[in-house]
Amino acid sequence: MTTISVVYVTNNGHTAVLAEAIARGAGAVEGITAQLIEIAQHDIKDGRWSNEHIESLLQQSDAIILGSPTYMGMVSARLKAFLEWAFNPWRAQAWKDKIAAGFTNSASQSGDKLNTLIDLAVFAAQMGMIWVGVGDPPGNNWSGGSRDDVNRLGTWLGAMSQSNSDGPAAEEPPASDRSTAERFGRRVALIARRLTEGTPYEVERQAGR
Amino acid sequence: MTTISVVYVTNNGHTAVLAEAIARGAGAVEGITAQLIEIAQHDIKDGRWSNEHIESLLQQSDAIILGSPTYMGMVSARLKAFLEWAFNPWRAQAWKDKIAAGFTNSASQSGDKLNTLIDLAVFAAQMGMIWVGVGDPPGNNWSGGSRDDVNRLGTWLGAMSQSNSDGPAAEEPPASDRSTAERFGRRVALIARRLTEGTPYEVERQAGR
Amino acid sequence: MTTISVVYVTNNGHTAVLAEAIARGAGAVEGITAQLIEIAQHDIKDGRWSNEHIESLLQQSDAIILGSPTYMGMVSARLKAFLEWAFNPWRAQAWKDKIAAGFTNSASQSGDKLNTLIDLAVFAAQMGMIWVGVGDPPGNNWSGGSRDDVNRLGTWLGAMSQSNSDGPAAEEPPASDRSTAERFGRRVALIARRLTEGTPYEVERQAGR
Amino acid sequence: MTTISVVYVTNNGHTAVLAEAIARGAGAVEGITAQLIEIAQHDIKDGRWSNEHIESLLQQSDAIILGSPTYMGMVSARLKAFLEWAFNPWRAQAWKDKIAAGFTNSASQSGDKLNTLIDLAVFAAQMGMIWVGVGDPPGNNWSGGSRDDVNRLGTWLGAMSQSNSDGPAAEEPPASDRSTAERFGRRVALIARRLTEGTPYEVERQAGR
Repeated sequence: MTTISVVYVTNNGHTAVLAEAIARGAGAVEGITAQLIEIAQHDIKDGRWSNEHIESLLQQSDAIILGSPTYMGMVSARLKAFLEWAFNPWRAQAWKDKIAAGFTNSASQSGDKLNTLIDLAVFAAQMGMIWVGVGDPPGNNWSGGSRDDVNRLGTWLGAMSQSNSDGPAAEEPPASDRSTAERFGRRVALIARRLTEGTPYEVERQAGR
Repeated sequence: MTTISVVYVTNNGHTAVLAEAIARGAGAVEGITAQLIEIAQHDIKDGRWSNEHIESLLQQSDAIILGSPTYMGMVSARLKAFLEWAFNPWRAQAWKDKIAAGFTNSASQSGDKLNTLIDLAVFAAQMGMIWVGVGDPPGNNWSGGSRDDVNRLGTWLGAMSQSNSDGPAAEEPPASDRSTAERFGRRVALIARRLTEGTPYEVERQAGR
Repeated sequence: MTTISVVYVTNNGHTAVLAEAIARGAGAVEGITAQLIEIAQHDIKDGRWSNEHIESLLQQSDAIILGSPTYMGMVSARLKAFLEWAFNPWRAQAWKDKIAAGFTNSASQSGDKLNTLIDLAVFAAQMGMIWVGVGDPPGNNWSGGSRDDVNRLGTWLGAMSQSNSDGPAAEEPPASDRSTAERFGRRVALIARRLTEGTPYEVERQAGR
Repeated sequence: MTTISVVYVTNNGHTAVLAEAIARGAGAVEGITAQLIEIAQHDIKDGRWSNEHIESLLQQSDAIILGSPTYMGMVSARLKAFLEWAFNPWRAQAWKDKIAAGFTNSASQSGDKLNTLIDLAVFAAQMGMIWVGVGDPPGNNWSGGSRDDVNRLGTWLGAMSQSNSDGPAAEEPPASDRSTAERFGRRVALIARRLTEGTPYEVERQAGR
């Protein structure tokens, strides 16, 4: 089996929706176990995150997908506390050659979401991980496009979603972002399974415009 | 007088529309001369850009606002050839303490536009320039927002616009992006005039959501 | 008077050394008051930073220079908690048109320090602030250069220093990085005073190689 | 067989030294063919790069490692012209799931090299490629370290080297950077072979400090 952990922070539930969609997409691939791991505030004491159960789950994971709302232009402080704990597996090179990926949500259409994804990719590189992004062509970028398109924001380094600041997580982010996330989870799973089990897969290509 | 140069590359005219809106906004400020400078392919020979007239215009400018379409995740090769020529004023620290700012257009709603703006801000810092971004709160980020809002994409490091890939420059980017750009030009002008002439100005604050 | 706040996080004291050098350089400029503000862990409760005295000091500052060690590729979680609090002045656009600048320390020569500075510049842009970087040409980049050169790491978006992981803050970062920081503080001060008071200054240019 | 292409731009030969070291490290892995591909100025006409032979070599490659000097804070204009040509394989999603990696050289110890690597990683993500970085812990970051250490600059997103601005390519970058690059090439090769052929490999971990 190949194990994929989706590690995330959420406050209003929007990023959790994205995390769930990614786990759903990954878990639907044969031979994949996908698990959701929320980084909770109560695991942070004096600025230091610690949770032995999660540490052990991550050590046994083949892929770790990291998600955070974009707050003030970058990853949230809560996720960052977790990333600082990862100094420990870094010192041991314990996550080396695991698959990594990232995702983020914010209220703006573009906002600084890309900077959050860059933060996560830079972190993963230091960990010695292998980075996988979104594989779909952009949507909603021509006269016939709409907010309902897969990859409607046009993102590749990782998954993005946009949720109105006054929208409940039951409705936001919209279905298109959930589909994008689900497809992203599937993509990470196929690549992770190939690296872990050697299972071949067909590259899935979508026509873009 | 305070002189502002809007230096840009355009292919299909979308980035030119943005450049014109910025120059319009800057030029409407009393005491400001705003000029448009297109970086043309014919000024690049063997990969090296050169145009003595433009060099002289830039040397006399108090602010230089740089714009490029986002192509394959970053500034265009054509603008980059110009930025490499700027090694010369860099060596002489000739642009030190001039105002710098940036803008970009692409077809995706988010895309990698932020990375283009980061490229430009990193460049400007090396030149010893002072960076000014967009000063407006984000639009189109709540249930009552729309594509017609000022700063509808939610950008601050520089101005962004989105133009449908099949949309003519007469229509794209939309009026909201042109307003955002015009306001951005005004903002750069007020700050540049303050630094150059010492003219005081009132900070213009907009209510966000 | 023009007031400059140097806001920083430190753990082993290296970043504090940098902060002190910047404040020294800024404070030596006539008409400038420079103050050091440490973001302490005890001001963070349940992930939220709060300190009314500091809030008020910052509201009254004309320039805010932000510093953090680079931990796992980006700003520290502790500084990030402070940046998230800044959502409040952001909503009020209360820091708009203040000067911003950034600095960071880590053990690697390059490391991911630039990403920390990008994080800070992206944050400052969202706040509507005006970004000032290091104005010196690079040192230690030719056969006659050395670790003792000003700007020995070659940085511009903000100040960088490098401290050996086993070096005490009494010795690390080295004198060259302290000089670079001091000169950076002076530069920010001259520009801030110009914007605040209208005081003219001569642009200080250094010969590079 | 697994084919790895090292695609690069060089002017004074420093980046070529790095490219050769990477190809040497990759090619030494059993079952790997590594080829060097220089992006030449004469393949760029009117700003557009074209070379059908290289296009075909890349189409048949399993991994593409991209390198450029850092000029004025980002990838060189010449490499960028090539990256813009890649719009064509992008539209066809022809490079999807190939391995990608990046490297850069400049005269400064840090400089803006990280921004060049971010540019390349953002590009590769748009192409749907899988990103592999440097897997070694940082060197020259403690009192017993030196310029001779592997990964002496402390880089992970891709390989970096530093060459004195007046140093000939026969001597610069130094042996440590060449070793780092060679080890990086080996790492990319092991992962590429695993993805392409399914060949298992042992993760190689180095003790850091």
